[in-house]
Order: sequence, then structure tokens, then C-alpha cells
Amino acid sequence: MSTAENSNDAVAAPATTVPAETTPTNGHDAPTGETWKGTPLSQLFSENKLGWRGYVEWEDYPDRKVVATEILNTKKFTPIPEFQFVPLPDTNPVLVGHRWKEYHEALGLKSIVDFSWEIVLKEKPGMIHLLDFPYNGETPRKELVEGKLTDNLFHFVRNHGGVPDIDDDAFELEIGGLVNQPVKLSLKDLKDESKFPQHEVTVTLQCSGTRRIEQIREYPGDGDELINAPWGEGAIGTAVYRGVALKKVLKVACGGLLPEASHLEFIGADTYFKKNNVYNYAVSVPWRKVRQSEEVLLAWEMNGKPLPKIHGAPLRVVVTGYIGARSCKWVYKINALREPSMGPVQSMEYLYYNQQIGKHNTKMSNGFSIQNMPVSSAIIFPTDKTTIIHDGTIDLQGWSYSGGGNWVERVEVSPDGGHVWYAVEPENMTEKHYHAWRLWTITLPVDAEGWLEFCVRTWDSSNNTEPTFVRSAWNWDLHVTSSCHRIKVFSVNRSKPATARRLKEFEARGESFEPLTKPIEWQLEDTEVYLERMRRFPREPLN
Amino acid sequence: MSTAENSNDAVAAPATTVPAETTPTNGHDAPTGETWKGTPLSQLFSENKLGWRGYVEWEDYPDRKVVATEILNTKKFTPIPEFQFVPLPDTNPVLVGHRWKEYHEALGLKSIVDFSWEIVLKEKPGMIHLLDFPYNGETPRKELVEGKLTDNLFHFVRNHGGVPDIDDDAFELEIGGLVNQPVKLSLKDLKDESKFPQHEVTVTLQCSGTRRIEQIREYPGDGDELINAPWGEGAIGTAVYRGVALKKVLKVACGGLLPEASHLEFIGADTYFKKNNVYNYAVSVPWRKVRQSEEVLLAWEMNGKPLPKIHGAPLRVVVTGYIGARSCKWVYKINALREPSMGPVQSMEYLYYNQQIGKHNTKMSNGFSIQNMPVSSAIIFPTDKTTIIHDGTIDLQGWSYSGGGNWVERVEVSPDGGHVWYAVEPENMTEKHYHAWRLWTITLPVDAEGWLEFCVRTWDSSNNTEPTFVRSAWNWDLHVTSSCHRIKVFSVNRSKPATARRLKEFEARGESFEPLTKPIEWQLEDTEVYLERMRRFPREPLN
Repeated sequence: MSTAENSNDAVAAPATTVPAETTPTNGHDAPTGETWKGTPLSQLFSENKLGWRGYVEWEDYPDRKVVATEILNTKKFTPIPEFQFVPLPDTNPVLVGHRWKEYHEALGLKSIVDFSWEIVLKEKPGMIHLLDFPYNGETPRKELVEGKLTDNLFHFVRNHGGVPDIDDDAFELEIGGLVNQPVKLSLKDLKDESKFPQHEVTVTLQCSGTRRIEQIREYPGDGDELINAPWGEGAIGTAVYRGVALKKVLKVACGGLLPEASHLEFIGADTYFKKNNVYNYAVSVPWRKVRQSEEVLLAWEMNGKPLPKIHGAPLRVVVTGYIGARSCKWVYKINALREPSMGPVQSMEYLYYNQQIGKHNTKMSNGFSIQNMPVSSAIIFPTDKTTIIHDGTIDLQGWSYSGGGNWVERVEVSPDGGHVWYAVEPENMTEKHYHAWRLWTITLPVDAEGWLEFCVRTWDSSNNTEPTFVRSAWNWDLHVTSSCHRIKVFSVNRSKPATARRLKEFEARGESFEPLTKPIEWQLEDTEVYLERMRRFPREPLN
Repeated sequence: MSTAENSNDAVAAPATTVPAETTPTNGHDAPTGETWKGTPLSQLFSENKLGWRGYVEWEDYPDRKVVATEILNTKKFTPIPEFQFVPLPDTNPVLVGHRWKEYHEALGLKSIVDFSWEIVLKEKPGMIHLLDFPYNGETPRKELVEGKLTDNLFHFVRNHGGVPDIDDDAFELEIGGLVNQPVKLSLKDLKDESKFPQHEVTVTLQCSGTRRIEQIREYPGDGDELINAPWGEGAIGTAVYRGVALKKVLKVACGGLLPEASHLEFIGADTYFKKNNVYNYAVSVPWRKVRQSEEVLLAWEMNGKPLPKIHGAPLRVVVTGYIGARSCKWVYKINALREPSMGPVQSMEYLYYNQQIGKHNTKMSNGFSIQNMPVSSAIIFPTDKTTIIHDGTIDLQGWSYSGGGNWVERVEVSPDGGHVWYAVEPENMTEKHYHAWRLWTITLPVDAEGWLEFCVRTWDSSNNTEPTFVRSAWNWDLHVTSSCHRIKVFSVNRSKPATARRLKEFEARGESFEPLTKPIEWQLEDTEVYLERMRRFPREPLN
């Protein structure tokens, strides 16, 4: 068991020999015959544990990491995609993850890629597939506001690697590092209520890329080095997670932390790549956060059902109020550390730069680490660029959320781009939670016709609200789009007589008003009427 | 000769017989054998005058118009393009004019289409071809600011139909309607300086679609029914035109106007289509405008050279300060009218609606007629989305113009989206003209790095300035984009030590900084340096 504090350090650790117990081949991989310096890949990067398919241990074997980097350095991969200046394809999947697949293939791990997509098709068939591998999937709009809890079938997914396939019975969680007593726990141990009381917590998880598409539209930026996943408003979802408080596990099973421990590192069974280095996915949260009882859970149940594989079965971390990336899936190792994890996801990514940081001066130390999520919101219906034929009012619905234990206090919607704001009535919002969003609906009086701009802002229990414009909070890595969400709506107010007449004319001609972009082929005004108007109100002054 | 006041009335006039002098076939058209009710098309829509190829007289023959409409009504055409919700193709021509070509072909006039493109290739090979037919071409950016006068090769073109091919010797201009003495004048008559003094006037002509692309990006709208020509900043150009004042011609040749005459209608030799009706291109301007001496010219020379065919040879109108559409090309008939022309270009198009007018309530009488052009400007260099590596200052150049005889007084450029404005020094602007733009350059101090937004505004001699945002003046027909022109620039300030170091690193690796969108593959910060920073300024508070 590794007890190195920074087991994901980007600098290669001293080589150790590949241990003897790695002889079983990776369960998913048919022997491909591919070798590296005479050793089959399937043996070099083999499964470590029976019943754990699609998992390769990297952190315990610095040697293996060195070999993997050597192999990757000999290969050419599809280049890192350029930041997005151009429109996205209108396809599903929106983007194809060539590079990550090629990395896996280069190490003889193609079966992980294949298995992951099988799981997508089984567990998440109805999603907006943003990226096929590593799988990034967004909740369709209808399912996003169906209810306070997002159906497991439709909860967003932002994976960083393939989906491992671990048997419940074979699973064990290792806890080490700066603890009084390193320990291994089976799932059965963790579910033993005599040792660990269980909690159900309603938690909204959010990718910090939520609504990134708005930042992309404004200016291209780095996004993240994997790919600029063009998330819309659906990289957020809410579920009731059942599990045990990590705090309790650390106390009861490990006898507590050593005094110098300040951070808990979570390591997942997925394989992560960064600049030809190979890792197990690793992130960390401060001990101070974990210490707050049920705010950091080890969970095996989601909305009363067993945790889906794509969401981290058999066991995942759920960190309330934080960016989703810290809620490590397939967590099999927890290390108490003095400092935050040096895993690339923690140390080099999910950093919030300001507008003036770009390619000319990005350094990890120039960005602050995204842990707690800020207050933010989105209008889900109507969707952007919709034409709405109405009688003087328009209904809107959406979500509002704040992280860090702040709950949503007030939601305000503006029908005029942010000048006049109407507050949502409390009865039109779902109940308050410390760690979950509120869904809301509002009916706004709308007189004006034509293109209108609606926007929403939310106030949380610490009186935080949102920046006004995307530009206000644009950042080089395109994270945390927390500015007022804006939609363009083409308003057609049937309560206006001239509009009602025109709509009847459409009807009489058996022609639809929509799409708005379809030109009208018939004459818009009778010539006699036009002339009468022009004689009454001439184009030019008479003198 | 037609003396009907509203010779372009959209309501079909009483049929008259097709006159006997139409027997010569259209000079451009090889007999196609196509007939309509037994009569060859080439005879139905034949050339009226020897030496006038590609010209069909419609306005004098209501009959012929009726037959053309009957024929068009039997055909299916490529539909009117939908308003633009989607990005434009990155091609040249950007758009292909299927429908207008098909109209011409349906009437046996394909040779007009072919000849027009030949003329484009001969007279305008280096343009940004927005639409191949009717030809719409934009000046490339470099040529736009080459000098105060735009080279004839690169002056923008916005045609509404095909290019007719009229021999100078055969040409005659008919003046009729509410004049004391209807008259026909040859080009030789018009050039007789003993009758008509000649003038050279420096004139900026502008399509009211200039910078339409900015409105399209904000919201889709109608544009015009022909097609949403996605003009950028290059639908404007300046030339010295030589010709005679229309005022003088009316006085000397026609003995002046009848008292009830208030508008002058100009009819061009190109064929125009609107909802399956066929016209000669027709527009009008008020007599009051014409009366102001050399403000409305009949011109045959452009920048000291014979007027190019694509610009209206042998004779065109030049209306100073007005939308380009009034400067009728290939003008062969002028009618003095009581009211503005009922030609569709004048009565049904180039109307300025407000934001709340859309498909639900567009009527010609709801828009005001675009005649004089407002104050407007554009930054031409740098172009939008450029990366600029500089040492603390950035150079910009552009154009500023105001119509209606207002000249450009002051140009101001903002490096921060419209907060701080720097005025262009008079010595960095071309000279003042009553009817022409001023080109300008400015060097701005720029400290900030990353994405910056520059914008320009101009003040004219009537103290008019520009609306701040595109939204401020967005209109359903997407005309007259006069809001502050904005560009996004990625600033890399080499005078900053950290930036200079990073640029040297690019150089040392033999790697280019651009394109900005190309990800950096190497490590951005040394791990030891990163850790040192993180220990000095920890991610979380210590207590």
C-alpha cells in the first residue's frame, strides 16, 4: 500500500520492480500479442485484483508508470483539439474522444474503452452525449426540471477515464497516509451500521464546466486540456445519496488522523492521462471539509437504487457543495496528506484564472483551485431562440444552486435583459436544502414583441448573487460560468389586435408561423392601404 | 414612353398589346426554342433597342409583365433562403444565388446571368464575393483602407439584378413624368459642357447592409427578401464621380418640373423580381434633394476612369449622403412623380423597422424609408479575434462616415469595451468632405493582456454619434448597423517580464505562439516552483 503523501506527483517517483502479483492478465483484455521489450502489454499493465476488471493500479508502481510513458512517447496521437473558435457539430455524440481512446489502446487497454461505451448505452441511453470517451453526458432539458431529484438514467456524467467493472464482493477500500491506523475495508464492512451510521443526503453535483458554451461563444479559451467540453445548462443534477460519513470511517476504522494531516486524497480506479504520464484519477479535499459530519460521504446508493457503474459503483465519494470532480468515483484508496493531492486533476486542472491570464502566462499557481461552487442559475424553458406565441404572459422554469452549504434564497427573472427583475414566489420553488438546488417556475407579464432577452439571477443565503454578463467572469479555462443566464426569445403577443390578425392570416393560408426564419411569401400589406398610410403620414416632410 | 406616375406599381396595370418593335431577339440569347403559348420566349421578352444587350423593358409593357408573372407562377423555384440562424459558409462566393438565376432562366434570360459573372471576373476578380448573382461583392480589408479613394477594382458592389451591356453610342436617357418637356438625351448630349457644366464630387456610397453580420450574430431577422447578404465592414467605398447635376439637366433639357412634382424616379436597365412580379429596377429621391445642385449627379466617370459596367455604365445616378440603393445604375429613364416610386425596392424594401416589428407585424407602412445614412464607423485593422503580440501599444485603423451632408468631426476609440475613449488626432485622419468618409489611424496604450474589446464611435457635424450596442439599434430587416463597431483582440504584452519569458520559451522550442487556439503541450510550470508557491500561498487558509 502506498503511503507516499503525494502519490500522484507529476515528477516520476523512483522506479520499483513490477510486483509478482500482477501476473493475471487484465480481465477485459483478450491477449493482443502486443509486447513492449518482449513483455506482453497485457502483463505489463495487468489487472491487480481478481474481480476488478478495467482497473490498472498505477500509483503503487512508479516503474509501470515509467514504462507506460516510454510507450506513449513512441506513439503519435490525434492532437489535442484546438480551443473552439468554430461552431460545434450538431451531432450526438457532439465530440468524439480520439485521443483518450488511443492512449488506452497504446497500453493494450482497449477493452476499457469498449466496456465504457457499453455502459453508456445501458445506463445512459437518452443523454446528450457530449463526448463519447471519456464519457461526458448532459441531461436533456425536459428531464432536467422533471423534479427535484434527477432520475439516475438522466443525471449528468463527466468522467475523466474509462468505467472500471468491479465486483461488490471483491471490492476493498484502502485508507492510508497520515492516519493512526492504515486499513482495508470491504463494502460489507462499510455497510455495517453497528460501526458506521448511514446517512441519506440530498446533493446537487455540478461540473464546473456547466454552461461553458456561453464562455466559448464569447471568446475561445483553453477549457481544459482534455477537450473543451461544450456543456450547456445540463451539467448539473441532484440525487439522494446513501452512505457513511468519511469522518466517521476515519475515526472508527483508522483511529483518526495524525496531527499533520490536512487533506484527504481520493484515488479512483480509472486511468488518467496527462502529457504522456499515466495516473489513477486523484483529487483531494481539506480535512476541515470532511470533519463537518455528513458533508463528505462514501456512497453506494443513488436515489434509493444501487449506484450505477457509470456513477462510480461500487463506491464513490460525494463531497457536498464542491465541484463534482472531487466526488471521486470508483474510489478504492484514500490517503491522508499534509498538502492537497498532486494528482494532475487537483493540482493542474480545475483552476480559475482571470480574464487576463491566457496562453502567454498560464501557470498552475496563477489560478485558484475550484472547490466550493458559487451561486448560479439557468433558465431551462423556454430554450434559447424559441419563438413564443402567447397572450401577454410567458412561463419560465429553471434551476438555481449555490455550493459551500449556502442554500438558494431568492430567484429573480428579468424579461428585459436585466433591468426589471421579478422574484419567484416561494410556493413556486422546490424546498430548501443545504446542498441542493431549487427548481422554480415563474409567469412573467410580457407586452413587447420581437426578440427579447430574459435572464435569471439567484441570491444565496450568504447574499451572494451572480455577475451580470458572461464577460464579467470569463476565465481562460472556461470554468464556473456563474454569470446571469440569458436566453433570447421571439415574443409574439396574440393579445395585440394586429398580431392576432396576422396570425389568422397565417391560419387562413394553412401556413405555419414557425419556423420564425421561414420567409413570408405573400404580400404583407395591401397596396391601397399602404398608399393611404403614406398619404396620411408622408415619407418626407411637406415643407 | 411611360408617363404613369407610379410606373412600378405592384398592382398589374391594364394590359396593352406587345408592341411591334420588339421583334429583334434579345442580343444575348441564343434561341432556346422555349416557347410560351406558341411564342418563343426570346420574342416575348426581347431586347427593345439595338446595342442594348441584356436589357428588357418591363415598365412600358404591362402585358409583358403579366405574361412573365404567368410563366413564373407555373414554375417551382429554390425557396427564399431562411433567415440566418446558422453560421455562414467559409467560401467565396459565400452564397450562391439560385433563385435569381432561376427567375432569369425561366424567362429565357440566362445569358444575363452568364454575362454578369463574366463581368465580375473581369472587373472585380479580387473581391469577397458574398453572392454570385445578383452580384454582391465586398471590398477586402486591406484595400478598404488603402487610401481615401477606393480603387474601382475593389469598390463594393451590391447589384439587384444582372448587368446589362449597353453601347455608349446606342444609349439614351428618357426624362418624363411631371416635367414641362419630356426629352430623350444621348450620352453625347449629356457630356456637352456648353449645356451642362460638369462636376467632380468625392462620394462615399454605402449599402445599408454594411456590418449586417453583427446584427445576424445577435438575432436572426429578415434582412431583405432577396437574401440576408451577410455584409461585414466592406460594403462601403469612396470614389470621385464625374458627371452633370440632375438639377441642371431637368432645368435646361426639360424646362423644369411641373409644380406638383415632388420626387424623381430612376429606372435602371436591370430586371428585378418580387413575388413573381417582374420590374425594371426603380427607386426615387425627393426633388428637394435633387435641387441642391451637385448633390445628385448623372455620372459616367469613376475615379478618372470610365464607369465600369458593374457600376452602371454607361450612366448611373450618384445620390450623395443616401443609401447606395438610390444611386441607380444603368439609369435610362427618369420620371418626375408626385409621390415616391412604387417600385418594390423603394416602397417595400430598405425600410427601417424597430426591434419589436417582426414576422408577426411587418408591413411596409411600419418601417421608415432609409434615405440619408447615419453616422457610423468601423475598425478595419486589427480584424476581429486577432492575437496581437505588442510592447504596450496597439495600432488601429478604420473608417468613419456620416450621410446627409454631415461630415465626420471626431473619431473615438475605446480599448476597454466603451468605458475610456481616446480621440483620433486630426493629422491621423483623411481630410473632411461633405459626402465622404474619413479614414483614420490611432495608437492606443494597452497594458492589459488576454481578450480585450476595442470599439469605435464617431461624432458628425450635427453632433450625432452611434448607439452603443448592436442590440440598441437591431431592426427586423437588419439594415443600417450603426452601433459602435466592436472587435475582440487577444493582447500579449511583451513588455511584461513573465510574458516575455513565456514567448522566449516558445521560441526556444521552435514553436509558434499562434494560433492562439493551439494548445500548449509542454509543462507550464516546474513542479518545484509550483510547490514553493503553494507553500507560500496555500490553497486553503491555515486556520
